[in-house]
Amino acid sequence: MIDSIAISTGGGDAPGLNAVIRAIVRSAIKEYGWEVYGIETGFDGLLETSGVRRLESKDVRGILQEGGTILGTTNRGNPFEYPAKVGSKIVKEDRSDELIANFKSLGLDALIAIGGDGTLCIAHELFKKGLPVVGVPKTIDNDLAATDVTFGFDTAVATATDALDKLHTTAESHHRLMVLEVMGRNAGWIALHSGVAGGADAIVIPEIPFELEIICDHLIARKRRGSRFSIVVAAEGAYPKGGEPFYMQKSGGKDGPAVRFGGIGMWLARQLGLCTGMEARAVVLGHLQRGGSPTTFDRFLSTRFGVGAVELVAKEKFGEMVCFKGRRVESVSLEEATANQNLVDPEGEIVRVAEKLGVTFGR
Amino acid sequence: MIDSIAISTGGGDAPGLNAVIRAIVRSAIKEYGWEVYGIETGFDGLLETSGVRRLESKDVRGILQEGGTILGTTNRGNPFEYPAKVGSKIVKEDRSDELIANFKSLGLDALIAIGGDGTLCIAHELFKKGLPVVGVPKTIDNDLAATDVTFGFDTAVATATDALDKLHTTAESHHRLMVLEVMGRNAGWIALHSGVAGGADAIVIPEIPFELEIICDHLIARKRRGSRFSIVVAAEGAYPKGGEPFYMQKSGGKDGPAVRFGGIGMWLARQLGLCTGMEARAVVLGHLQRGGSPTTFDRFLSTRFGVGAVELVAKEKFGEMVCFKGRRVESVSLEEATANQNLVDPEGEIVRVAEKLGVTFGR
Amino acid sequence: MIDSIAISTGGGDAPGLNAVIRAIVRSAIKEYGWEVYGIETGFDGLLETSGVRRLESKDVRGILQEGGTILGTTNRGNPFEYPAKVGSKIVKEDRSDELIANFKSLGLDALIAIGGDGTLCIAHELFKKGLPVVGVPKTIDNDLAATDVTFGFDTAVATATDALDKLHTTAESHHRLMVLEVMGRNAGWIALHSGVAGGADAIVIPEIPFELEIICDHLIARKRRGSRFSIVVAAEGAYPKGGEPFYMQKSGGKDGPAVRFGGIGMWLARQLGLCTGMEARAVVLGHLQRGGSPTTFDRFLSTRFGVGAVELVAKEKFGEMVCFKGRRVESVSLEEATANQNLVDPEGEIVRVAEKLGVTFGR
Amino acid sequence: MIDSIAISTGGGDAPGLNAVIRAIVRSAIKEYGWEVYGIETGFDGLLETSGVRRLESKDVRGILQEGGTILGTTNRGNPFEYPAKVGSKIVKEDRSDELIANFKSLGLDALIAIGGDGTLCIAHELFKKGLPVVGVPKTIDNDLAATDVTFGFDTAVATATDALDKLHTTAESHHRLMVLEVMGRNAGWIALHSGVAGGADAIVIPEIPFELEIICDHLIARKRRGSRFSIVVAAEGAYPKGGEPFYMQKSGGKDGPAVRFGGIGMWLARQLGLCTGMEARAVVLGHLQRGGSPTTFDRFLSTRFGVGAVELVAKEKFGEMVCFKGRRVESVSLEEATANQNLVDPEGEIVRVAEKLGVTFGR
Repeated sequence: MIDSIAISTGGGDAPGLNAVIRAIVRSAIKEYGWEVYGIETGFDGLLETSGVRRLESKDVRGILQEGGTILGTTNRGNPFEYPAKVGSKIVKEDRSDELIANFKSLGLDALIAIGGDGTLCIAHELFKKGLPVVGVPKTIDNDLAATDVTFGFDTAVATATDALDKLHTTAESHHRLMVLEVMGRNAGWIALHSGVAGGADAIVIPEIPFELEIICDHLIARKRRGSRFSIVVAAEGAYPKGGEPFYMQKSGGKDGPAVRFGGIGMWLARQLGLCTGMEARAVVLGHLQRGGSPTTFDRFLSTRFGVGAVELVAKEKFGEMVCFKGRRVESVSLEEATANQNLVDPEGEIVRVAEKLGVTFGR
Repeated sequence: MIDSIAISTGGGDAPGLNAVIRAIVRSAIKEYGWEVYGIETGFDGLLETSGVRRLESKDVRGILQEGGTILGTTNRGNPFEYPAKVGSKIVKEDRSDELIANFKSLGLDALIAIGGDGTLCIAHELFKKGLPVVGVPKTIDNDLAATDVTFGFDTAVATATDALDKLHTTAESHHRLMVLEVMGRNAGWIALHSGVAGGADAIVIPEIPFELEIICDHLIARKRRGSRFSIVVAAEGAYPKGGEPFYMQKSGGKDGPAVRFGGIGMWLARQLGLCTGMEARAVVLGHLQRGGSPTTFDRFLSTRFGVGAVELVAKEKFGEMVCFKGRRVESVSLEEATANQNLVDPEGEIVRVAEKLGVTFGR
Repeated sequence: MIDSIAISTGGGDAPGLNAVIRAIVRSAIKEYGWEVYGIETGFDGLLETSGVRRLESKDVRGILQEGGTILGTTNRGNPFEYPAKVGSKIVKEDRSDELIANFKSLGLDALIAIGGDGTLCIAHELFKKGLPVVGVPKTIDNDLAATDVTFGFDTAVATATDALDKLHTTAESHHRLMVLEVMGRNAGWIALHSGVAGGADAIVIPEIPFELEIICDHLIARKRRGSRFSIVVAAEGAYPKGGEPFYMQKSGGKDGPAVRFGGIGMWLARQLGLCTGMEARAVVLGHLQRGGSPTTFDRFLSTRFGVGAVELVAKEKFGEMVCFKGRRVESVSLEEATANQNLVDPEGEIVRVAEKLGVTFGR
Repeated sequence: MIDSIAISTGGGDAPGLNAVIRAIVRSAIKEYGWEVYGIETGFDGLLETSGVRRLESKDVRGILQEGGTILGTTNRGNPFEYPAKVGSKIVKEDRSDELIANFKSLGLDALIAIGGDGTLCIAHELFKKGLPVVGVPKTIDNDLAATDVTFGFDTAVATATDALDKLHTTAESHHRLMVLEVMGRNAGWIALHSGVAGGADAIVIPEIPFELEIICDHLIARKRRGSRFSIVVAAEGAYPKGGEPFYMQKSGGKDGPAVRFGGIGMWLARQLGLCTGMEARAVVLGHLQRGGSPTTFDRFLSTRFGVGAVELVAKEKFGEMVCFKGRRVESVSLEEATANQNLVDPEGEIVRVAEKLGVTFGR
């Protein structure tokens, strides 16, 4: 018998998190009369005394359309490797037993863990140790194979496409080459979708290492045909054939931030500017992609995921995660959920669609 | 061998039409070197001399993000029942043979017909008479069973949800009951999606005839719990149990427009205002839902459909229509495409999700 | 010496009200350490026991960008003519003394009344009877002569212009004539600004009674020049020369709502459709114009007004109202503030600008 | 007698340029029957043979709402110091006489030069040498004293405020400090307006050199009061007291781009992160601020400026520039127009408003 449940949000935030929380709280209370608790800042909240609070319907009023998460989130917080200070050193401790003990001492019957790959793996490990947990997938990069799509992605693509629309007019007026760097370390989905929706001339993604010369030739040919500007979209993790992703490189010294802020976007602007003879500029969208009000698509999907997660708990299908297949919300085991990444298929339909429209991937 | 193709757009316009046209023109020219022609205002353009014009890449520049259709559209124009004036009367003529003859005399090898149910049925009939045609589904109401989703719908839902967001703040400030009437004569998808994404308290759709009393009781209970405002979304075709849709009613005389503009939305505002004792107001979104720049979701899907249609032509798969299944663009015969409507399932997951959140459908 | 102040919001809501409230609360607390109280639903809150609550900084967190007012508002509530039930009749009572007595018994030292013409007149009368009050002008119609501009107007114009952008694409695709009806019973500012910003072909406003024939001729001439669609913006209070505003007409009987929802917009669509031979449609924006997140212009102005009102209180300049002149926030007496309306000058620069661009006003 | 006029756009692009061009073309043709020519890429177009083209009404159809300029623009192109290649060196030539001669040989009677400080100064010099020119002020930074406001600024502020809204939710979820770097090398208007409208906690602008310690203390105090995130807006030209603007610094060598992309925003994120112990991130908005569809405010003002410029030409008031004062479009001599900058007054009302709300400027 379920009486009270808890919710946690982990990993980078994504538009739609609050809509999931709202749907969980409202349907758990209305359908089942459960008590609902929110755990602050991911799993951390179960290892700290002040990290759990009651959530009533009124607490989720008006958050459907708000970005972020009212519970806070964090990228740390793996309870199996929890950072601890021993003297002046940071060491890692396994505090998973403590977490489960705390969970039980709070009288909680189930946990709904909303998070990405990392969070879901931890959830799976905790499930194997006895924690009654179900998952809700959150990946703004859309890189989970177990679900057709997840929330946050549509909003991130919309933000990137809106930026491309803005860059188009200024590129055209100034006869410039503009490079937009978007999120995507392993998967190029945001670059691919926004590039197609925003009418980019070249798109570079991690799944297709590019040859700079091919992109140059493409842009020069475009210029010869009379187009006096060009737009390039670069996924953060894209890299030239034979090279490696920029965000992984060390800059020969301790100057980490310079690399952090001088990634593939700026490198491409410099290189393409030189080879095409065009004035080139880069814009790095960065954290803007995680923020803002979710699109209606994301609000709708988040709401369905939230209600779906409550149903999994009601049926005590622990160790499962909600997912979206075709037109339906279904579920899949956490084990399977985290087994495969959803990467762009270099020979798939979407890449081919882009190429048929005249977009180059530098291959 | 295909050398030249034509495009037509029929029925009510939908955001994304221009993106489909752009994708067809660009991929037909780039991949296959075909000549592409645009037919003005649906099939009508093939029955008039001035209705066909060449489309080059430059003609589709910048239209990806624009609403509407550069080809114009119309709701008349069934060539099998074409309106003709005989004396002072309007009669209907079958001009389908003439249409096909005109098509051939223009030296065209294939037609890509973009349209809804009506257009696709005509396309199918023309195909049976020998016209080499492929279809692209366009239905802002999302009511075609043959495709998981089609373009225009996401934008229409976004427009409706944006309106709900706006009504929320004013309803809350004035302690009012606001009713938003949205499109959907047969299918309540727009009302359902926008209602869930926009946090409505009641949703009425054609698939679930409602009982006014149930909605009243729901809103009164809500008021008693301290919520001093309420939001109701009504699909144009919704109607009370035992009644009939408002848009079909004649107002006792010839005064059609009075009915046209006094539909379910206003009726509900009046009735619910009376029974709840709240100040009630209605807003009819109307044509705003068809306009505006397509969302990135619609731009992306439209582009894939356009390229997919060109592929169908290249493979000479005439009599087929592009459709979307799961994550993929596929095809289906025009016959099958128009056989079934996609209606909201009153017992389906989405309606149940809404009810679990506390939304009433008046049942 | 000021120790505690109160805020009320009256009249129709306008985007930016919450930003004013936030600015008052934050600056009153930070600069002066005052206690701040919010009065619910306009002056009514001072005539009811439960209508006053303390506002702390945390209560105004996150409301800067929200439409509506956290205090609620109302269009009733003139304390000099307060509706009371005597037997089965509604009579009007002067409860102004009671209001002032209640105000004093709460230990309040000053009131900041945010509202339009009606609210400011009442504030002025209460000031003359001894209430220490300052005003903040709120008129979404921009019809107060005492201030160059006030908040809410820019947002309403933006909403109307966005609607025009949407109608443009659908009008163009369908070769239609679209009429958009916007707010403005006495002043045509919203119609004028949105019409110019949205590229309308005709604009009708209360200040310039129009001749239907002139508009018809203009649209027919436009059609002859090859433009197959037209856009008309109508202020709610516009009317044909020799006629009277539609919203004032009774429909020959008790059917008020039919008139309410069948105003100038629908009448124009019908008439212009007949005389031009075009398919015509009307959209009535209605309450959408009051809702939504304020534009940055309105957020900025609201914030300055809020702080400005606190300064007036600090200087004990009661009976004054903040206003905007040129680039500066200044103040003006409530008497002067409500003396003159700001109407569109039929011979002024803006109307002439529109006419020079080819817009007709039907004169 | 005026028969034909020309338009040029110079300097960085700004939303609203196309609306100005449209208003000029339409009103010049409709009111006066003039021929209108567009000069490509600023004054350069008059020094090259292919740089001038006729503009008809149809050429400006649909551009009212588009960002950028259909004429192209450039930051080079001072005809008094025109770059020329002599052997392998670039030297500067005075080609102003040639420009005026070309202008006359084209049979043009007047030039409307739309541009910022640089363009208007050149226009003034050319006027003194006999060119019949009027100006339209364009400065996205709002730094011209001769006009209360000019187009492009409102849109840039809206883009920056939208970014702040997005950063708010992600900052709050992650308990982070986010720094947004916006345009403004000499004038901090964009930072100030967007910072106030977007609810920033600290704003740094060129007019008020900041002390890092004061900002740190402010953010730490905020943290102690329970606010777990903070938002800082930095104008590009802001700098610490005793230091110099970052964009002017050379990075010890030839590596210009590293400085270009590592400006005040990133420096602040690093420094404030260290002193507050918060995770800090920076976003550089860059070219996004110049792009996109103009706000209705900017569309409206641009249109009035365009018509106003045509009126100046009709009255042969050459050497003048349109400007905006209070509620009216007026004119001012080009000499006066470029004489004074409009900088933020460190003791002015707006800065004080921000401080009263609890914003720190680091002083």
